[in-house]
Amino acid sequence: MKQDEFELAWLPELVYTGGRFESGVALLCDWSGRIAGLARASEVGDGKLVRLKHRAILPGLVNGHSHAFQRVIRGRTEYRTGKGSDDFWTWREMMYRAATRLSPADLYDASRMIFLEMALGGITSCAEFHYIHHAPDGVPYDDPNLLSKTVIRAALDVGLKICLLRVSYARSGFATEPNPRQLRFIEEDPQSFLSHADSLRAEVAKAHAGRAWVGLAPHSVRAVPLDYLRECFRYAEEHQLPVHMHVAEQPAEIEACMKEHKRTPVALLETEGLLSERFTGVHGIHINVEETRALARARSLVCACPTTERNLGDGIVPAELLFQEGVRVSLGTDSHTQADLLEDARELEYNMRLQKLERVVLNRTSDEPSALAASLFDSATRHGAESIGIRGGGTLEAGQAADFFTVDLHHPSIAGAAPEDLLAHIVFSLPASAVRETVVGGRMIIEDGHHRSEREIIEKFIALQKRLWS
Amino acid sequence: MKQDEFELAWLPELVYTGGRFESGVALLCDWSGRIAGLARASEVGDGKLVRLKHRAILPGLVNGHSHAFQRVIRGRTEYRTGKGSDDFWTWREMMYRAATRLSPADLYDASRMIFLEMALGGITSCAEFHYIHHAPDGVPYDDPNLLSKTVIRAALDVGLKICLLRVSYARSGFATEPNPRQLRFIEEDPQSFLSHADSLRAEVAKAHAGRAWVGLAPHSVRAVPLDYLRECFRYAEEHQLPVHMHVAEQPAEIEACMKEHKRTPVALLETEGLLSERFTGVHGIHINVEETRALARARSLVCACPTTERNLGDGIVPAELLFQEGVRVSLGTDSHTQADLLEDARELEYNMRLQKLERVVLNRTSDEPSALAASLFDSATRHGAESIGIRGGGTLEAGQAADFFTVDLHHPSIAGAAPEDLLAHIVFSLPASAVRETVVGGRMIIEDGHHRSEREIIEKFIALQKRLWS
Repeated sequence: MKQDEFELAWLPELVYTGGRFESGVALLCDWSGRIAGLARASEVGDGKLVRLKHRAILPGLVNGHSHAFQRVIRGRTEYRTGKGSDDFWTWREMMYRAATRLSPADLYDASRMIFLEMALGGITSCAEFHYIHHAPDGVPYDDPNLLSKTVIRAALDVGLKICLLRVSYARSGFATEPNPRQLRFIEEDPQSFLSHADSLRAEVAKAHAGRAWVGLAPHSVRAVPLDYLRECFRYAEEHQLPVHMHVAEQPAEIEACMKEHKRTPVALLETEGLLSERFTGVHGIHINVEETRALARARSLVCACPTTERNLGDGIVPAELLFQEGVRVSLGTDSHTQADLLEDARELEYNMRLQKLERVVLNRTSDEPSALAASLFDSATRHGAESIGIRGGGTLEAGQAADFFTVDLHHPSIAGAAPEDLLAHIVFSLPASAVRETVVGGRMIIEDGHHRSEREIIEKFIALQKRLWS
Repeated sequence: MKQDEFELAWLPELVYTGGRFESGVALLCDWSGRIAGLARASEVGDGKLVRLKHRAILPGLVNGHSHAFQRVIRGRTEYRTGKGSDDFWTWREMMYRAATRLSPADLYDASRMIFLEMALGGITSCAEFHYIHHAPDGVPYDDPNLLSKTVIRAALDVGLKICLLRVSYARSGFATEPNPRQLRFIEEDPQSFLSHADSLRAEVAKAHAGRAWVGLAPHSVRAVPLDYLRECFRYAEEHQLPVHMHVAEQPAEIEACMKEHKRTPVALLETEGLLSERFTGVHGIHINVEETRALARARSLVCACPTTERNLGDGIVPAELLFQEGVRVSLGTDSHTQADLLEDARELEYNMRLQKLERVVLNRTSDEPSALAASLFDSATRHGAESIGIRGGGTLEAGQAADFFTVDLHHPSIAGAAPEDLLAHIVFSLPASAVRETVVGGRMIIEDGHHRSEREIIEKFIALQKRLWS
């Protein structure tokens, strides 16, 4: 390694690379924020070395599914709303109460708050499934992408990379009365939706190449009729964009799809030829073996959001089935009731244990101490990157962006781990708070557990919550 | 309130008292470490005031079930151990590998580590279900209570209160060959067990009154034959001690009990007249309506340990049934795969949501924003205190010990909460790391997120893990 091929060398105690932790190895970053490679500490000149004592470096976590604005209802929906029982649908009405009242400035403050929390927890990239487009009265803003750009700006200001999944939302549902609380989401005409997405794509590519990019997200089969869906997928195919869609989150959604299309959502996508390796079905809870195989054949992914899914009473992602059939699972913090992607990772496995009354369900091919943890960690990193359009991302390989985080090896949750079981300690026991540094594109956005703007971001958010709810 | 009736007044932004957060109120503590009452800030002389900016004070969490030494196997059992599937019983063999090799000094170092983590997470009292009594070869130490006292010393040195539940363990199981890995646990004769417990009780009462105390824990119906059980319960009744027992954690344990006694464990305890309000059944996962009602009639408690139970593949505590029938549920971190009692609290509710595909299951009687959270918080505080023998504990009422913790109201996980939904934010979204101060008996053991001995405790533990496993 020549000394002019890198700009900076990070030297922690351990680096997670090639599926294991290596010691005495420095991570080299070039001037453009990419990884130049790894080198022995002795090969690196002292002037370029950043020593990180008691730290391990791991590839940055990738948040595959986020609704940033829902941070404003954290802790505000955990009570009985009426005489009947509560469920996803009663929660949704409460969520709409927030969605209908946020100004662009409010959305910025809420988004920065959750992006800050993500950064503090080791997340370096996030896919934002963004569906609030218009003013509260349903009238489009002069710039139809105002709010998409607001969320992008919030992520970039915090220092995260963002894949803005612009959502198409045409209707309340099949043969369903319009819901006035969805006024801000609706773009009935696929051509105008695509023209908005197209200008957003161009603007973002020009202004933020490599830091922000655009994908499409037809909201769900409920909210988007078939012709419209086809248009979205055609555009995404043409421009090779990631496509995400809520799929099989709730039984009622599947029933409605059976009524309209005589097929389940996944079966519909398959028979229409819409599944591809650029497609991610978000949730994928209520799917069967056949649907799973259809996803596997197309190399599509499923994005699971276990902390949200337990909060909303959605049910349990059939992770064993997905893993067995070779469907890659990515992870998202979704409604942000918690913002701890490793908790999501461990719940993939834990929910299987609770269903089967067994242990070590999702990786039985190896007796390496961290083999199962590595499978779950792939969901939080590599599969997330693949799902949101970062080719080969979620690793510390040369040529990839220098997106990573560090953990404190003396943190009480993982102290005493050996290199071979450190990843198991991290995946099963580390709270987000043990993340010490987060680096995105070679730039340190979290240093020793803090963000330089955190006080301002938090104070603005507290003021927003007061304004919204009191 | 006269100024000589208290020694110190803690003034945070909010105090959780009487089931709600009050502002502008100081918590008064007397010289003996008890709560003298609450007062308006203006009534308190400045010299006695400890101002806590951006903080809320809540009653200390009570950890109802702990095996401290199991901290040494955290992160070391998450892999395939053989050709068959893994479960609780294969995990137990791995756990025994640790239990068989710890010296008294090792046990001290491991115990301090987990007690430190508990203190950092707002836990002020812990019930240690302690079953390692003898040297590794099964020979009793000169002092049969050496290891019990070692664990007590570890808790007190960290600053926690501890209820040492001395475990009786007579056999491997009904009609089962002895397991050499259980040699350290076994005291075959109830009289010698009780005489050891009796001297421990006397010594602890003399040396550590109010900070440590003793209860009994017949390990399980598997490990303790009926006559022996009766002796234990008789002694506990005579001295009014808490009695804990593992109950219905695994289906195999119930099958064995059916074979030996023609009844389930709970039915056996009931027909033998052993249930009482001093009894806590730990786990209580595989129990039916009749058994639940038997527990309710006797005013017995169930201690649930959801983070451990999901890790071990034990199954889901039937929390809705227990709540409906009026059985108080306490919480324990048990194997310490995580040490975050609020995560245990939220899992009580979340596992119900995943089973029923509904929301807000465990408290449907109120539409107060924090009513459900308050029920879960009671499990982490009041019911824990009742279960381990702290009468009226787990509250900030006058006369109770000044055992409490603070949270940072500007922590990203709860920032923006209003007083009425703050408890819901805390129970559903706060990570243990947002705890800033922990105070036990009026003495601050965690200050601004740190313990004064944490560096030494962690370094000793890291050295222990190296010694044990490399």
